[in-house]
Amino acid sequence: MIKAYAASESGGKLKPFEYNPGPLGRNDVEIAIEYCGLCHSDLSMLHNNWGITQYPFVPGHEIIGTIAAKGAYVKNFTLGQRVGLGWHAGYCMACHSCLSGDHNLCAQSEATIVGRHGGFADLVRAKSTSIVALPDGLNAQSAGPLFCGGITVFNPLLQFNIPSTASVAVIGIGGLGHIALQFLKAWGCRVTAFTSSEAKKKEALTLGAHDVLDTKNPAELEAAANRFDLILATVNVKLDWNAYIATLRPKGRLHLLGVPLEPLEINVFPVIASQCSISGSPVGSPASIATMLQFAQQHKIEPVVEIFRMDQVNEAIARLASGNAKYRVVLSNL
Amino acid sequence: MIKAYAASESGGKLKPFEYNPGPLGRNDVEIAIEYCGLCHSDLSMLHNNWGITQYPFVPGHEIIGTIAAKGAYVKNFTLGQRVGLGWHAGYCMACHSCLSGDHNLCAQSEATIVGRHGGFADLVRAKSTSIVALPDGLNAQSAGPLFCGGITVFNPLLQFNIPSTASVAVIGIGGLGHIALQFLKAWGCRVTAFTSSEAKKKEALTLGAHDVLDTKNPAELEAAANRFDLILATVNVKLDWNAYIATLRPKGRLHLLGVPLEPLEINVFPVIASQCSISGSPVGSPASIATMLQFAQQHKIEPVVEIFRMDQVNEAIARLASGNAKYRVVLSNL
Repeated sequence: MIKAYAASESGGKLKPFEYNPGPLGRNDVEIAIEYCGLCHSDLSMLHNNWGITQYPFVPGHEIIGTIAAKGAYVKNFTLGQRVGLGWHAGYCMACHSCLSGDHNLCAQSEATIVGRHGGFADLVRAKSTSIVALPDGLNAQSAGPLFCGGITVFNPLLQFNIPSTASVAVIGIGGLGHIALQFLKAWGCRVTAFTSSEAKKKEALTLGAHDVLDTKNPAELEAAANRFDLILATVNVKLDWNAYIATLRPKGRLHLLGVPLEPLEINVFPVIASQCSISGSPVGSPASIATMLQFAQQHKIEPVVEIFRMDQVNEAIARLASGNAKYRVVLSNL
Repeated sequence: MIKAYAASESGGKLKPFEYNPGPLGRNDVEIAIEYCGLCHSDLSMLHNNWGITQYPFVPGHEIIGTIAAKGAYVKNFTLGQRVGLGWHAGYCMACHSCLSGDHNLCAQSEATIVGRHGGFADLVRAKSTSIVALPDGLNAQSAGPLFCGGITVFNPLLQFNIPSTASVAVIGIGGLGHIALQFLKAWGCRVTAFTSSEAKKKEALTLGAHDVLDTKNPAELEAAANRFDLILATVNVKLDWNAYIATLRPKGRLHLLGVPLEPLEINVFPVIASQCSISGSPVGSPASIATMLQFAQQHKIEPVVEIFRMDQVNEAIARLASGNAKYRVVLSNL
């Protein structure tokens, strides 16, 4: 039996919950969980904001642990090896996206917490193709958030071949944004942080921003006209997107990583005149995650985390929901 | 004195109009106009739809002719040489975009019919850097529309390195779309035409489309889910953009070439889930125009035109405004 924490209804408290995962599939691994990050997507799922949650619901998809068991066909991991598991717990491995290395775009992919039970537990199962080995030298305690928040902000740099000479802005300095600043600094970019929080300004500079602009000050936004090659928007609220597009250089890109529920309203003329792109992307493929982990290890990039014991899961959720967590909450079984 | 046709007020009839262009600038050329295409942008400017028209207004920015005079610094053209002039009649040549070869994105570029007099005339002037020589073997009579409509649809293929293996849809089979079909066929792509005109279906197949879908039939749009790597939208009306985004493959791009005046309303979740891009672009640089002309000559690509005498300019405008022109109207001085 796997010992987990589950909510039995939308927005409900998490309570101890045991389930029998059945026999281990031949392509599956079972991970003994050491740490599991808490992501805003866990809260969205807990409240069934996307209409796809099944209860009892076990959150947790930023998992670090060791291989406790593996199926007969699993060749590329050894028992006891330290690995991570993120948003996806399996891919079809047969569609055009999977065959192209874009597993994160697989329409048949299985999410770790959709129709499966996640990482707020002692054990978790996943297809072996969806897990990635942790490089030596990476801090296991803080590595969980790299597997969802981290890869979400790193992936666009790979996907769009962002050059080190680019001027890049990050909107929102939270769980995603604070990792983005570190990656972009190490990538060699000119980095600007957009935040509405006075308190986060200094921290953004420490994390890698060269300067900080106030999202609540239209004059600062206006003064940034024609400045950015790329904007990574990590927020999930509606912004004045046309004002941000005006800060793009010709051929610039506004890239969305958070999911505002309201439609974007985009004026076409400026997009055509400056050959701008508006785009989005979800997490990243296993190969991209491995590439990111290597880069993080090389550059000593580490999510800033607050650690809670696994049995403090409800306090941890309240802390994340308060908006005051700096910057990512991690639950520990150790 | 240059003999032209001008409107003296918004939407007014064009009447004979003479103006003195002054001494020829040292970097300028004067073109003896043989043909000049009539573009929807000429109509938008005639009616001051964009709020930037100055009257008397001489339309015409798809100009084919021969060099009649050249300034002292103009080295790369010879008197009598056949050239073309499109939307831009000059660039600053000093900004980052110009220095990067993206002259069409130059914020200080001069448009041929904005604050200048255009090609509905016997002569026209332009900076020599904005004109492009016509390759031998290209039909001068139909080449004018390549300099605006043609480069507008060709440029995205260059800008985004569209592979020949791409599946591409063209929305709107008119002045732009009918050239796009020809370019895409020659490029090697799988080509789909979207049109609401029953009459244009067969013509779209002749022009290069492999199949044709009806924009007014939601079922056909729905059946095209996950089919296109690129959509070129050449219309300037509001469409159900989210329905078209649903026809994109993962990593697909919806690229806008017409200017709908209403904002786009785009649902974010599908864009993120499939890593799609929404973008736009304006005409193309002189180097891109030269590349396009070479490609058009090699593949015998030719805009389909209806020819009017230059003094029939008002009939020509009425013909374009009727929506029945197939597909591009050209005025002739010959």
